[in-house]
Amino acid sequence: MIDHPSSASVDAGLLNPGWAASVVAGMTSDHSFLKTLLDVEACWTEVLADVGVVSVEQAEAARSATDPASYDLVALAREAQGGGNPLIPVLKAMRSRVGSASTSLHMGATSQDIIDTALMVMSSRVSASILTDIKTAVAALIELARTHRETPMVARSLAQHSLPSTFGLRVAGWAAGLAQAGQHLEQASAQLPVQWGGAAGTMANLSGRVARAHRTGRLDAGITVFDLVDRLAEKLGLQAPPAPWDTNRLVVTRLGSALADTVVACGKIANDVLISARIENGELGEPLAEGRGGSSAMPHKQNPVLSVLIHSAALSAPGLLAQLYTGAGAANEERPDGAWHTEWPALRQLLRLAGGATQMTTELASGLRVHTDAMRHNLERTGPLLVSERIMAELAPVIDAAAGEAGAGKSRIQEVVDRSLAEGADFAVLLREITPDTVSDAELADLLDVAQYTGEAATLVDRLTAEYEEWSRA
Amino acid sequence: MIDHPSSASVDAGLLNPGWAASVVAGMTSDHSFLKTLLDVEACWTEVLADVGVVSVEQAEAARSATDPASYDLVALAREAQGGGNPLIPVLKAMRSRVGSASTSLHMGATSQDIIDTALMVMSSRVSASILTDIKTAVAALIELARTHRETPMVARSLAQHSLPSTFGLRVAGWAAGLAQAGQHLEQASAQLPVQWGGAAGTMANLSGRVARAHRTGRLDAGITVFDLVDRLAEKLGLQAPPAPWDTNRLVVTRLGSALADTVVACGKIANDVLISARIENGELGEPLAEGRGGSSAMPHKQNPVLSVLIHSAALSAPGLLAQLYTGAGAANEERPDGAWHTEWPALRQLLRLAGGATQMTTELASGLRVHTDAMRHNLERTGPLLVSERIMAELAPVIDAAAGEAGAGKSRIQEVVDRSLAEGADFAVLLREITPDTVSDAELADLLDVAQYTGEAATLVDRLTAEYEEWSRA
Amino acid sequence: MIDHPSSASVDAGLLNPGWAASVVAGMTSDHSFLKTLLDVEACWTEVLADVGVVSVEQAEAARSATDPASYDLVALAREAQGGGNPLIPVLKAMRSRVGSASTSLHMGATSQDIIDTALMVMSSRVSASILTDIKTAVAALIELARTHRETPMVARSLAQHSLPSTFGLRVAGWAAGLAQAGQHLEQASAQLPVQWGGAAGTMANLSGRVARAHRTGRLDAGITVFDLVDRLAEKLGLQAPPAPWDTNRLVVTRLGSALADTVVACGKIANDVLISARIENGELGEPLAEGRGGSSAMPHKQNPVLSVLIHSAALSAPGLLAQLYTGAGAANEERPDGAWHTEWPALRQLLRLAGGATQMTTELASGLRVHTDAMRHNLERTGPLLVSERIMAELAPVIDAAAGEAGAGKSRIQEVVDRSLAEGADFAVLLREITPDTVSDAELADLLDVAQYTGEAATLVDRLTAEYEEWSRA
Amino acid sequence: MIDHPSSASVDAGLLNPGWAASVVAGMTSDHSFLKTLLDVEACWTEVLADVGVVSVEQAEAARSATDPASYDLVALAREAQGGGNPLIPVLKAMRSRVGSASTSLHMGATSQDIIDTALMVMSSRVSASILTDIKTAVAALIELARTHRETPMVARSLAQHSLPSTFGLRVAGWAAGLAQAGQHLEQASAQLPVQWGGAAGTMANLSGRVARAHRTGRLDAGITVFDLVDRLAEKLGLQAPPAPWDTNRLVVTRLGSALADTVVACGKIANDVLISARIENGELGEPLAEGRGGSSAMPHKQNPVLSVLIHSAALSAPGLLAQLYTGAGAANEERPDGAWHTEWPALRQLLRLAGGATQMTTELASGLRVHTDAMRHNLERTGPLLVSERIMAELAPVIDAAAGEAGAGKSRIQEVVDRSLAEGADFAVLLREITPDTVSDAELADLLDVAQYTGEAATLVDRLTAEYEEWSRA
Repeated sequence: MIDHPSSASVDAGLLNPGWAASVVAGMTSDHSFLKTLLDVEACWTEVLADVGVVSVEQAEAARSATDPASYDLVALAREAQGGGNPLIPVLKAMRSRVGSASTSLHMGATSQDIIDTALMVMSSRVSASILTDIKTAVAALIELARTHRETPMVARSLAQHSLPSTFGLRVAGWAAGLAQAGQHLEQASAQLPVQWGGAAGTMANLSGRVARAHRTGRLDAGITVFDLVDRLAEKLGLQAPPAPWDTNRLVVTRLGSALADTVVACGKIANDVLISARIENGELGEPLAEGRGGSSAMPHKQNPVLSVLIHSAALSAPGLLAQLYTGAGAANEERPDGAWHTEWPALRQLLRLAGGATQMTTELASGLRVHTDAMRHNLERTGPLLVSERIMAELAPVIDAAAGEAGAGKSRIQEVVDRSLAEGADFAVLLREITPDTVSDAELADLLDVAQYTGEAATLVDRLTAEYEEWSRA
Repeated sequence: MIDHPSSASVDAGLLNPGWAASVVAGMTSDHSFLKTLLDVEACWTEVLADVGVVSVEQAEAARSATDPASYDLVALAREAQGGGNPLIPVLKAMRSRVGSASTSLHMGATSQDIIDTALMVMSSRVSASILTDIKTAVAALIELARTHRETPMVARSLAQHSLPSTFGLRVAGWAAGLAQAGQHLEQASAQLPVQWGGAAGTMANLSGRVARAHRTGRLDAGITVFDLVDRLAEKLGLQAPPAPWDTNRLVVTRLGSALADTVVACGKIANDVLISARIENGELGEPLAEGRGGSSAMPHKQNPVLSVLIHSAALSAPGLLAQLYTGAGAANEERPDGAWHTEWPALRQLLRLAGGATQMTTELASGLRVHTDAMRHNLERTGPLLVSERIMAELAPVIDAAAGEAGAGKSRIQEVVDRSLAEGADFAVLLREITPDTVSDAELADLLDVAQYTGEAATLVDRLTAEYEEWSRA
Repeated sequence: MIDHPSSASVDAGLLNPGWAASVVAGMTSDHSFLKTLLDVEACWTEVLADVGVVSVEQAEAARSATDPASYDLVALAREAQGGGNPLIPVLKAMRSRVGSASTSLHMGATSQDIIDTALMVMSSRVSASILTDIKTAVAALIELARTHRETPMVARSLAQHSLPSTFGLRVAGWAAGLAQAGQHLEQASAQLPVQWGGAAGTMANLSGRVARAHRTGRLDAGITVFDLVDRLAEKLGLQAPPAPWDTNRLVVTRLGSALADTVVACGKIANDVLISARIENGELGEPLAEGRGGSSAMPHKQNPVLSVLIHSAALSAPGLLAQLYTGAGAANEERPDGAWHTEWPALRQLLRLAGGATQMTTELASGLRVHTDAMRHNLERTGPLLVSERIMAELAPVIDAAAGEAGAGKSRIQEVVDRSLAEGADFAVLLREITPDTVSDAELADLLDVAQYTGEAATLVDRLTAEYEEWSRA
Repeated sequence: MIDHPSSASVDAGLLNPGWAASVVAGMTSDHSFLKTLLDVEACWTEVLADVGVVSVEQAEAARSATDPASYDLVALAREAQGGGNPLIPVLKAMRSRVGSASTSLHMGATSQDIIDTALMVMSSRVSASILTDIKTAVAALIELARTHRETPMVARSLAQHSLPSTFGLRVAGWAAGLAQAGQHLEQASAQLPVQWGGAAGTMANLSGRVARAHRTGRLDAGITVFDLVDRLAEKLGLQAPPAPWDTNRLVVTRLGSALADTVVACGKIANDVLISARIENGELGEPLAEGRGGSSAMPHKQNPVLSVLIHSAALSAPGLLAQLYTGAGAANEERPDGAWHTEWPALRQLLRLAGGATQMTTELASGLRVHTDAMRHNLERTGPLLVSERIMAELAPVIDAAAGEAGAGKSRIQEVVDRSLAEGADFAVLLREITPDTVSDAELADLLDVAQYTGEAATLVDRLTAEYEEWSRA
């Protein structure tokens, strides 16, 4: 029999290999979030000290109590149930560490002010980190696209060969998707606001304190409650909103959408790599790295682990985004009765998925192994039949003219297409037989060369890479 | 026994009372979408006629075949299974109607070009209609917020009374949420692109035709394939993208996010109305309208039907948005093998939910019945205890001074708060007993007046309404 | 410019090629649902007539008003907004058709009773239809699995070759998944209950009527309100629940889960077909059918349209199921204020997706083209290295014994594996060189035959097909 | 400025107050899951030792390496990225601890075998714990329902008063929902299977080892690979399935659905408590507990924290369930390329939400404070008009008879209903005026007593409690 499980209750990402090893993992841990909660409280006290409402010593005392290692994280997490949020036990523990400076903490604030602000600080930092990775990946993809601007590859629609294209065009499409997601994230994360409304979103407590400080002369008469919030926002690298947003959660849904966009843009790339790295396809291989992709039991196997984990993220993000929207749509009155709480883990998991996916995509983009021979080989599986449409357009009039009979070209070409498909006969040979000698062998070979029927692929590479290059370098 | 169901297979919105009666219902019906598919084909032929690639007669023939009433919608829907998309049977039926002009139809296009472009046209029109409604609603809410800028109302957090606020501040928050959603939608819908890539996204077929037209002199040498797409985009009121976006679906997820934002912003308002229109609360009532909200069996009943249906939309949107993201994240290669198809019904249902919710919210915003007496009555249920925090801040120093004892004020006030809660005793009377005579009865009454502890509520109304007023009138 | 869209507002499934052509489409149309609403009303009147509470003429009048063709579906859908549900206008229109029998309609009922009961009737019929298809598909898959019980095919994990297996085992897994989903659906649909609770779920109105009928002797004293509901359930082929379930929606979530299980079980099959039908893989082909899978522009193309559409359903079902659960979790009091309404379109779309996916899977299962030569060919791409693990287990001891040195076998075999991988050298040839002559060439060839290292694959086929065969024939 | 976040990367549930303090938190931590992975490996070695395939000493060595405290959890989580799953580094670390017994570990197994089996063990234990709580809650609700079998309370539909009912009926509905969810969970968790298929689901490696052990006589010829799996299943308290289920994930979706059912059934209760505990409604209060529900800033406030957190769980579960279904529908071939990985965190979070919600609901069910006076008071707000339907049914014939005029009763009663609504006049007084003296004052008062128009409410309580009582005590 298996023993009963230990009571130890921490997670380290064991069930989340897609992000456990990422930079974002450390930025979003409970440990890190606790630190951010403490920092927001300390920052606010510092704002008040800057304008003279509290003393410098009080602000220093607050700052000295911001080392998360001195708190019992597990106990705090458990105690959060009592008030329904983690800030209540955190603040209580912080107060006990600052002695007489306790009264200068959390002035005019409510739990939601600190938690929302800390979530925004965490989101802002993580977004900046992700954006750096996205730009690196986009730049690498732009370079890869240009390198393979004219590398022939068969395009596939509905999982079947459609027409010739170039590998560069596919890569340029990857770059475009990822860059667009990055631009969304840039916009969304640039707007993250501080939250400061007090218990009812009216700023009443703070307003009263400020009025008293004005009366007693401790605070310059020209400084309003809004000025104080502006100062806090500046210190934290956030925006100052026109008003509290306790129950208007569009900031969160917008950020969540941009993160999900990022994950699905990475997912598109991973989907293509997973198909292309199949033994039967062989056009691409993931970058090799010590300790990755191997299988102890099967020495012949090289798993596309990066793409597997990115694909997994793309399967996970939509449900989490739905959770954010469900919460936003269930908000009510001046603080929601449950909807707010459902945001926290969903938003964090989205940050983590986007962080992990982007980091792995950056590695993928920089080290993808491209097998142009396999691309050529696969292109030739369907062969010149891929361009039958072109043959019809170019040769039918020539045959008509030679035969002196309108329609002759079309029917004769169709006939050899059908024979090729049915009998596996060589389309080029059959076509030569019905083509007038005015078309030379070389000309015919050119027409049948699938690599020459890639339309505007190269120009499209130029257009797409030009569109996003500057942004990727900013 | 119940007979077997009829084979008739049309829907008219019977299970969707939230949007069946809306303007958007007509704009998004299959009938209307069929019309749009036909229009896109005709428009493209007109573009080609404008530059001389096809004849004016051919373009006129195409245009003459765009009456959806002349097509068998049910048969077309069934036949769509064969090729996996509706355009194939639609195009076949359209070709059969234009005779010899058939060869000038759909030049260089693929099914996805027409369907994606038609979805964008539909989305663009619907978004414009929704935006008009949003602006009307926001303008009405701004006016309502200003009217009730100082109307006292108790704020609620976690479903409980928290502090005094004003009804105007709640309404200003509604306006802000809806305006932000509108701004997202405005941005997202301004970027909707035409799709034109041909079978593999390389524009090869069109490119070849243009090259031949250049050679034969039918087309001015300065006109490129991209110029033709630009002309189509302009005719349709869409953007011309740098390249086809067959498998980069962020345009769709962004639009979907903005629509879901719209629905949840409406949902927040509906949630509040549903609570406030309860018999026990009574602060708000929906606008009355003939034939709405009644119950045949229960003559005393007035159901808040608009809010019920808006709330229903807010419960529905997140799953549909997840569907869009799941599709976007499953895109692969040059045309997805199923992911694209999952977008169509989800995007349309989101357009409909947003259209219906916005239309109903506009009506709600314009005709909401506000019962300020009930607001005042509810505020007085908790009464002066709502401002105990303020009493502590203002009177404790006074009592300390009178008693000549630091801390005396705090402990005495706490004692009367506790007695009020425990015994239901009158807080004001108990407080008078411990307050020095230097504070007059009138001053004490002012301090205890919950309507005077609304902090920055009125200023926040000003800030929020100022923030969005200009936009709402544009 | 494109004209404004027509006001015509019906849908025929144009954006849903996955189910528009299915049997379920007709069973779930608005037209059909309207018919079911009318039938439920008529059935209830017949129950009352059976026991003498209303007259036979009244029941006949009700029945005569159940032809949906005589109602204006579009108008009814629009009018549903007023009361927030479609039954109110439907009942009003029905009453106007039955004259003096009007008072005998809808006795003791409320809108939710009729709508929920009609949804259950629709769900019950659709489930029965789907179950028939599932059983047909499972039976076909069982036969296919047995046919290919020992057909060698390479197994893939994480998109890479792992070990040899048989095609039969893969198919048996398909059959098992689909059969399990079918069994879930069978359980869920066998429990669908009638709804009959009156306006507040207390059955008060009906109870009063029954009491009066008892007093006046019109109704046998032994017949209770519950007996009447039992009779209705029996007539409609539903279950009679212990009590109304207006706000306990687990019946709906359970049905929804079983439908989603059905869709994802079909989805697994489609995913495999999409990969296997790729040109580079070639192991499977969809059944050919006139008018399906073709591409007008690309004559060489055969699209796996059934799998594409099934895959699309699998991408769509999760969000719809989330919608059902979101509604169930938002239920409150005695009738939900929006949560109920969100169920209707989501449940219907799930019924349709499951119906369409199952019907297409049945066709796929019955006509799949199996290319055993391609399976063999792909298996040989990785070749004997696929069984290196087996070689190590079987030959290392033999080499050790011959060399008189423990460990010699392991190190020598590893060496030739590495050389094969690095140099592309022939593993079999290298292995022969280090293998003692006591192992004959034939024995060595057997050990290296990938087709002989399929473990329990054939037995697993037997176990799985035995598990579900009887059920599939019931 | 805020310092950069610490690199510490553990979570303790700080953002999940709904389950961080629950029993399930400890059963589902990474620490606990690591222990389960180690236990599954040790158990399998013990199975092999029991039949003689490995030595008892080897099994003991394996067992001695199952203390998770001796492993570096954070490092293992990070290393999981390399192979895409946590078992690879865990097994490597375990092997390094058992020395020469290393070769007896993990025989014939693959990573998925251990991870899936460990997930099932974890799910099985958590389900058992949840079921105990559910039964406790259901038993408490049954008792509460019986106590309030006839306690009058107004029923609400669409957030408005509909008809009189009893509090007992509402509670019986809660019990029924929770019991049904429990029965689903019982069924789903009773079927959780062990996973044992080897690298390709063919059991080839194990099969080869067993064959060799048969040949060498180490293993009794009658013992098959399936017997070994049966023994493992029995040791772990799981089921032995007919075959591996690597890519058939309906076991997981079914469990997930039952967990989500549990959460939404709890959610319905919480929704009702949140409404009823509002100051304006006042019918219910959460059980009081030291340290819960208080607000430091607002001494008058008692937050319904249990219900808030349960409601939050109900908003979260649907998206997570969608994630499970999205994964199941994306499964392919013999091991999915990402879909499997998306299951792990979603399944665990569902286990945690269900565990936390159930534990809190148990507390709620056992200690709910019921204010029957408020129920009566609220019922009287609408008053006798709630039973106007009954008055019409009972008195109209009496008035008709007295007046000698058919229809007189109906029109006169309607008139006084209308006057009451319009003028706020006393319906009882007006009604007395038009009622013949043959109806005594006492009789009329009885008819108007809302508490006497509760229909079958009490009987429905009996039926529902009888339906689930035995199960709740099993």
